Amino acid sequence: MANEEILYVRPGRLHYFVREILKRLRVPAQDATKVSDMMVAADLAGVESQGVARLPFHAERLSSGLVNPVANIKTVHQSSSAATVDGDNGLGPVVASFAMDLALTKAKREGTAAVAVRRSNDFGMAGYYARRSLERQMIGIAMSNASPTVLPPGGTRSMLGTNPLAIAIPASENVSPFVLDMSTSVTTKAKLEEAEKSKSSIPEGWALDSTNHPTTDPATALEALRLLPLGSQLETGSYKGYGLALAIDILCGVLSGGGFGLELAGAEGGKPGVARIGHFFLALRIRAFGPYVNFRNRIDELLTKLTRKTNSDAPRIFYPGEPEFEMEQLRRAHGIPIPGDLSTRLEGMANGLDLADAWEHLLESRK
Amino acid sequence: MANEEILYVRPGRLHYFVREILKRLRVPAQDATKVSDMMVAADLAGVESQGVARLPFHAERLSSGLVNPVANIKTVHQSSSAATVDGDNGLGPVVASFAMDLALTKAKREGTAAVAVRRSNDFGMAGYYARRSLERQMIGIAMSNASPTVLPPGGTRSMLGTNPLAIAIPASENVSPFVLDMSTSVTTKAKLEEAEKSKSSIPEGWALDSTNHPTTDPATALEALRLLPLGSQLETGSYKGYGLALAIDILCGVLSGGGFGLELAGAEGGKPGVARIGHFFLALRIRAFGPYVNFRNRIDELLTKLTRKTNSDAPRIFYPGEPEFEMEQLRRAHGIPIPGDLSTRLEGMANGLDLADAWEHLLESRK
Repeated sequence: MANEEILYVRPGRLHYFVREILKRLRVPAQDATKVSDMMVAADLAGVESQGVARLPFHAERLSSGLVNPVANIKTVHQSSSAATVDGDNGLGPVVASFAMDLALTKAKREGTAAVAVRRSNDFGMAGYYARRSLERQMIGIAMSNASPTVLPPGGTRSMLGTNPLAIAIPASENVSPFVLDMSTSVTTKAKLEEAEKSKSSIPEGWALDSTNHPTTDPATALEALRLLPLGSQLETGSYKGYGLALAIDILCGVLSGGGFGLELAGAEGGKPGVARIGHFFLALRIRAFGPYVNFRNRIDELLTKLTRKTNSDAPRIFYPGEPEFEMEQLRRAHGIPIPGDLSTRLEGMANGLDLADAWEHLLESRK
Repeated sequence: MANEEILYVRPGRLHYFVREILKRLRVPAQDATKVSDMMVAADLAGVESQGVARLPFHAERLSSGLVNPVANIKTVHQSSSAATVDGDNGLGPVVASFAMDLALTKAKREGTAAVAVRRSNDFGMAGYYARRSLERQMIGIAMSNASPTVLPPGGTRSMLGTNPLAIAIPASENVSPFVLDMSTSVTTKAKLEEAEKSKSSIPEGWALDSTNHPTTDPATALEALRLLPLGSQLETGSYKGYGLALAIDILCGVLSGGGFGLELAGAEGGKPGVARIGHFFLALRIRAFGPYVNFRNRIDELLTKLTRKTNSDAPRIFYPGEPEFEMEQLRRAHGIPIPGDLSTRLEGMANGLDLADAWEHLLESRK
């Protein structure tokens, strides 16, 4: 019988659990911490598909030798405001944190900096890296390519990934920062899986079936994996989502010297192989463009005006990052929910790695 | 009776005509050349809405004192790889060319550079500035904010512009470069005007009417000016188009110290005022990330694989920039078409400015 109990666990305990699992899989402690930081941030933000739910996927790839647990990450090209990083096939969050921090360090000195990354793996939540800019009063941008699941307009097979783009921009302390974190497709595989699990149909405009006709059945869409680019149809601008996805593939895959297009088929799905995923990070130091206090006052004004109700019946307008910010407050207070089927998997994984203690430690944190 | 004859004119003659008109309106010759460069490039690419069709709009704003013909463009903040430019309310193409070239110069030295621009005007075709990077073997990115015509999801009034984004990436000489040039809304006012003119209905998902219900009538949509963000509906990702438009407004308006959001209402439409439009440019020197020859071989491979037909019945897939590139070859051979109603307006404008000679010179170039 399926386990339908939802566990609510403390973020700190979940962080410890993820770290212990990764350490047991030969990941050095400081690298395990970086992966755990990203996963807990994703779970706090309500982006469960990039949180601890993704740990079994990474664990399996570490175990089977598809990901290098002891990667030697290197900067292979460098100028004052640009660099290329070789991830040595390490865990995505470890490689991506290194590269984003390099971009931030360079931008602090020069004003603007970009870092391209090759030979990495799935980095999880793009917004996590973009957000690293915020406490340094910078603007952060993060992108990644991904295994081909998206159909170009007029195409008959998926040739591009859902290639995410995240942009984080600081605001005042009492205001939620602007954090856009989007795939360049209409939707993602994770959303199809959610719909399948809850036995609901999906909207037209999300995906095609294996004969390239629209489908509203999530199982059919998952089988075909032909997601549509943002815009859905040509007449409603799908060449724009397609163009963004392709530009991201070029920045992350071609510019970096990494894998691109169909070469990323091993990153996920039927025939696992070395992922060859690439990323691209950009950092802008706000003070290089003018006084920071002016920027802060002006962005507060923009976001306040945007979200102000014109009358009491009008709906409140949200800006990117607000829903995730609110979710984080809620989950810090009430715990991170772990659905029953996931907790069964995590417990099994912990037992298999002789880490029943770490699982017990997590359970004790139940709220 | 309406003039329905289409004139086909030579690009060089059209360039001369635009320049003469602007010079007569007190624009210095070298600045008039820059505007003319952009407009002819737009007409060659088939983006007529940013070509000479837009000259009467700019001429009127110059005549009425809303745009400064003799702008003193200044770099007001600067570090090695970042700058802010004040456009002194000059013509958009003059200010934008200055700023993009500054980004390219800095990126050549440092690897990456960004320039934010305030106090400018409508810069026309975003892709024109991004494309300036190509001959320097760089990647160019250009953005602008614009007068509010786009409705945030759940909103009841237009608060954002169609805020265009262009990305240009070089390829081999025998391959069309990648040039994405997109608004972050599903469509633009120009497309509504085209539909109205040709008496065709518009697709659902483009715009709402003045009671915030979907409309397929272009006149109703033009009256309300409530365009939908890319993605059209929340369930098909409109928060992504909205998020991109807002991020662009922040980079172009807030970061630069220029106008943003509803402050840009004077840029176009009912109550003309000083535009206060801002831009943002980014340049990446490809050689700062690795050997250029590797990049060129790899991007050629990606674009070739993407566009290769899997079988002879399959449609050919195009990538961004290809249709405009083909149009340019065609128009260089056969001339730029000037529709009858536009030629009537241009002739009237030329006569009003005592430039009948310039008009005659253009007419002589008819093919």
